Amino acid sequence: MIPQNPHYKDAVQKILIGAPFIQYIGYQLEEISPGRCVTALSIKSYHLQQDSFIHAGVLATMADHTAGMASLTLVKANQIVLTIEFKINFLRPATGNQLICKSQVLRDGMTIIVTESEIFAQNSIDDKLVAKATVTLAVVNK
Amino acid sequence: MIPQNPHYKDAVQKILIGAPFIQYIGYQLEEISPGRCVTALSIKSYHLQQDSFIHAGVLATMADHTAGMASLTLVKANQIVLTIEFKINFLRPATGNQLICKSQVLRDGMTIIVTESEIFAQNSIDDKLVAKATVTLAVVNK
Amino acid sequence: MIPQNPHYKDAVQKILIGAPFIQYIGYQLEEISPGRCVTALSIKSYHLQQDSFIHAGVLATMADHTAGMASLTLVKANQIVLTIEFKINFLRPATGNQLICKSQVLRDGMTIIVTESEIFAQNSIDDKLVAKATVTLAVVNK
Amino acid sequence: MIPQNPHYKDAVQKILIGAPFIQYIGYQLEEISPGRCVTALSIKSYHLQQDSFIHAGVLATMADHTAGMASLTLVKANQIVLTIEFKINFLRPATGNQLICKSQVLRDGMTIIVTESEIFAQNSIDDKLVAKATVTLAVVNK
Repeated sequence: MIPQNPHYKDAVQKILIGAPFIQYIGYQLEEISPGRCVTALSIKSYHLQQDSFIHAGVLATMADHTAGMASLTLVKANQIVLTIEFKINFLRPATGNQLICKSQVLRDGMTIIVTESEIFAQNSIDDKLVAKATVTLAVVNK
Repeated sequence: MIPQNPHYKDAVQKILIGAPFIQYIGYQLEEISPGRCVTALSIKSYHLQQDSFIHAGVLATMADHTAGMASLTLVKANQIVLTIEFKINFLRPATGNQLICKSQVLRDGMTIIVTESEIFAQNSIDDKLVAKATVTLAVVNK
Repeated sequence: MIPQNPHYKDAVQKILIGAPFIQYIGYQLEEISPGRCVTALSIKSYHLQQDSFIHAGVLATMADHTAGMASLTLVKANQIVLTIEFKINFLRPATGNQLICKSQVLRDGMTIIVTESEIFAQNSIDDKLVAKATVTLAVVNK
Repeated sequence: MIPQNPHYKDAVQKILIGAPFIQYIGYQLEEISPGRCVTALSIKSYHLQQDSFIHAGVLATMADHTAGMASLTLVKANQIVLTIEFKINFLRPATGNQLICKSQVLRDGMTIIVTESEIFAQNSIDDKLVAKATVTLAVVNK
């Protein structure tokens, strides 16, 4: 996949640092390349739900925002991406010290981008796929 | 819809107050009745994304958790509900002082419950439907 | 909702009669008005799956195509609609003599339309909601 | 992935041949192994929609039924699978002589199975990914 904005990494950094909710939750950028983005989240007690699993909303937010960053790598400098809709399956109860989200663009269109996000829960033994999402985004001129 | 747990309101209160992530974001319970739940969120600057709209993750978390509370009103005292998957459409950019989420059970099954959530953004003039989700939940014995 | 094409009913008729797969399955138009469409299907043995329920694919096709017709009522004469994605929940095993699909536009946008479809299975006693879908469509110039 | 039914191939054949709607459309089995199924469809004029693309319902039915067959390879001899819900993205207008659907179980659970389906349109030059679906199925005792 070929970026149209040579400064796509700066654009991605901006929507990471510039999104107050993402800073509030604590997501961090791990990797960025054309059509792809990886983020991480160090799990704190405020990320949990009532049964001490990581809250579905933490996973959904991560799947959505990381997909947005992966998609942003492919648009022009004067364009942004907006999530139209997403669907997420929770495959296992999520526990562990850290979440890793890997987002990959599946279909790069002029006006619609479709991107998948896989979230892995890491603990001392292994990584487990705990959620998978498909995100549909609109490409919009600024 | 007929509740099987006479203390269903207490059960719902528990998964609101007992979910650290929900407290961290600030969602509040407005109404609860069999098969139905309404929550509210007073918008703060940390709920926003990079373009000053309310973050999709704030909406998704609200849609999911409120659907969970609506669904919990219909299960037995020794059962909990877990989200299997959800899908959410973002219908308009969300702005305003407050979000209201109205969740209604669409199909009450023995093992699977399907619940819809509608989120409205309130400002001084009117309420606008900004997102709609369909949530599939599993009924699980404690 | 206000139609932009005064001949929207003709446009809808065209994509009903002009779609060979829809004719092959046997769907029929019942009602059409701005932002809304109702179709019917008389159940034959070839609509069934291995357990003698109506096949999920029959329901999905009906939900998608009826949503497309409801959406088409709102676009300009020189525009068509194309399904970007849909999600469908199967709420009960579907049996009966006839299916009725009611599609209603939830959000009428310039480039994206979101439409819901509810499918009811009719028998001699009552109508049962057996499936519900949310369909995202792109508005495209011909 | 390990099959629990040594005769899983017979079980899959049964729900292919035993499903009248699948025979009516013309889907064929290409490959079957634990957690995986591949089907093919030779495109005829009755598979098309009003703009001469393959109808979304043809793709959705194939994604659903092939996912069902992939999932059936992993359940016990006295169990069946039923689709609870699915979501499908249409990535490109589908044209060509033949469709190939590759379904792979993503998460094999005791009561819930999640399976992905990818559909490729084949023509004389290449294969193109035209649709991708995520299917959630319930495992039910006969």
